[in-house]
Amino acid sequence: MYYIGIDIGGMSIKIGVVSTTGEIINQTALVTEDIPAKALIEKVGVKINELLAQTGVSMGSVHGVGVGCPGAIDGKRGVVIYSSNLPRFQGFELKKHLEEVTGKPVRIANDADAATLGEVIFGSAKNYSSAIMLTIGTGIGGGIVIDKKLYEGSRGTAAELGHIVMRPHGLKCGCGRRGCFEKYASASALIRLTKQEMQKSPNSLMWKEVGGNIDSVNGKTSFVCAKLGDKPAIKVVNRFISYLGEGVLDYLNIFRPEVVVLGGGISKEGAYLTDRVKKYLEKYSYGYVGTPRAEIITATLGNDAGIVGAASLVAEEF
Amino acid sequence: MYYIGIDIGGMSIKIGVVSTTGEIINQTALVTEDIPAKALIEKVGVKINELLAQTGVSMGSVHGVGVGCPGAIDGKRGVVIYSSNLPRFQGFELKKHLEEVTGKPVRIANDADAATLGEVIFGSAKNYSSAIMLTIGTGIGGGIVIDKKLYEGSRGTAAELGHIVMRPHGLKCGCGRRGCFEKYASASALIRLTKQEMQKSPNSLMWKEVGGNIDSVNGKTSFVCAKLGDKPAIKVVNRFISYLGEGVLDYLNIFRPEVVVLGGGISKEGAYLTDRVKKYLEKYSYGYVGTPRAEIITATLGNDAGIVGAASLVAEEF
Repeated sequence: MYYIGIDIGGMSIKIGVVSTTGEIINQTALVTEDIPAKALIEKVGVKINELLAQTGVSMGSVHGVGVGCPGAIDGKRGVVIYSSNLPRFQGFELKKHLEEVTGKPVRIANDADAATLGEVIFGSAKNYSSAIMLTIGTGIGGGIVIDKKLYEGSRGTAAELGHIVMRPHGLKCGCGRRGCFEKYASASALIRLTKQEMQKSPNSLMWKEVGGNIDSVNGKTSFVCAKLGDKPAIKVVNRFISYLGEGVLDYLNIFRPEVVVLGGGISKEGAYLTDRVKKYLEKYSYGYVGTPRAEIITATLGNDAGIVGAASLVAEEF
Repeated sequence: MYYIGIDIGGMSIKIGVVSTTGEIINQTALVTEDIPAKALIEKVGVKINELLAQTGVSMGSVHGVGVGCPGAIDGKRGVVIYSSNLPRFQGFELKKHLEEVTGKPVRIANDADAATLGEVIFGSAKNYSSAIMLTIGTGIGGGIVIDKKLYEGSRGTAAELGHIVMRPHGLKCGCGRRGCFEKYASASALIRLTKQEMQKSPNSLMWKEVGGNIDSVNGKTSFVCAKLGDKPAIKVVNRFISYLGEGVLDYLNIFRPEVVVLGGGISKEGAYLTDRVKKYLEKYSYGYVGTPRAEIITATLGNDAGIVGAASLVAEEF
């Protein structure tokens, strides 16, 4: 038995054959051409057949097809409600058309949701049944898993966990609000905080790290230099951790989950990151005396999260 | 068939016989004496028998007993983990002992959680299956209902919806954090905002409303005067609505529920309150383009919420 996992992005569509233990057996990709969604999905169907043939797996041994897609997805109806990266998909009945093309049951979900389920079914959170995942990248994506099931809201589009307020009247967010969590604790925010601190600290090691070019700052710059003891870098990391910690505290008080999974590039910092987040949380007793503590861990699926997460959508029931 | 609903408070314990449509047929109360929890629960058992006899309802026609209790409650194990109002109940196996005393299945939950379920099963949200309730009082209590079921977190104690951050490094909260939502959008916060504005506005109608005595300010003062067109009062109401609106926006983006129920004394403001909250939310398109809108309504169970909410805990399955 195998699952097909499809990760639709604005640039490319990745397709993988995934085992029941969450390993990618074989994968392929096609360009996200700017053609009508239906025509593109027909190309995906052809690509799936090629991939299966090449892998020596018959369609009969495929249990189902899971699809992760950016934007607002109505999983129940199987429709893409809105996706800024995929304007051609707006209002598209993705599930219906992909089922016609493949002859297999299809389940679609927001890509961050799918990645979260992937971690719970196959990844770092597989020993837990309730998890909150924060994917820290350009923004902050989120996912909520309760009793091993994805929570997508009454009509999909829930778990926009980067869009809770951190500072009313704060920085303008792409979502229309001001002061959202992701404006303070995303990788983009970390880069902004790093640059601000560098401007104030001409002797910081961070300048050396980026070869004197502030445009070369990335999400690792402050972490690399903090580990070497550079005080301005430590200040940046602490500030970032405090914003991230506040958001995590919010989700602990709301969900009291078994585990919070931190994903995205920054999750490569591993224990250096989670130890500091935990220390911040402990300072506030997770908000309450006597409440159970959640584990704080990093995601492990990494680059495979798109395909494996999508596959987990059809593996959820097992 | 009837339900028994028990509302345990720091001062008194209210007990009601509730019909399957959520009406309180008869009720009684006893003082929360400072005696061991087990002895107190035995007294509750006697009181239940008296109440049933007086009402002409046999124990045989009681389906179950629901209990709402302040503090951190582990509903699965039926244990009070922590309750600042009921120190004698800390660690007490409430479910087990009350089942022994009554011979009926017992379910316990946090009182704000129970009140939320009460609104969904019997109250203003009965046409909805997923709801977030914010009970605006001294603090902000919360409850989460998903698919007509209470969400209490992996080990209880979830849905502390007043304890998400509104201002990092803001006002100190009783929970140990700073800047919690309830420090800005509770009735206590509204009273503080009202007093602050009155100090700045000696000619405000609000001074007349409280007979010149600032200590007489309550949660209604600003609303009463805002409706009469008093500009400082309108300013207070708008400010309060903006904080409340930010919190509601957070919960919309996290849960995308069908409905948000506003409870507590302030819910008596009805449409005057909800219209203004909705207007605030609309300004931000609920955070996203194309996402489904949630209804914003006020709670209707009022003073009955404690008993009826508790009863709904054992009615949930119907």
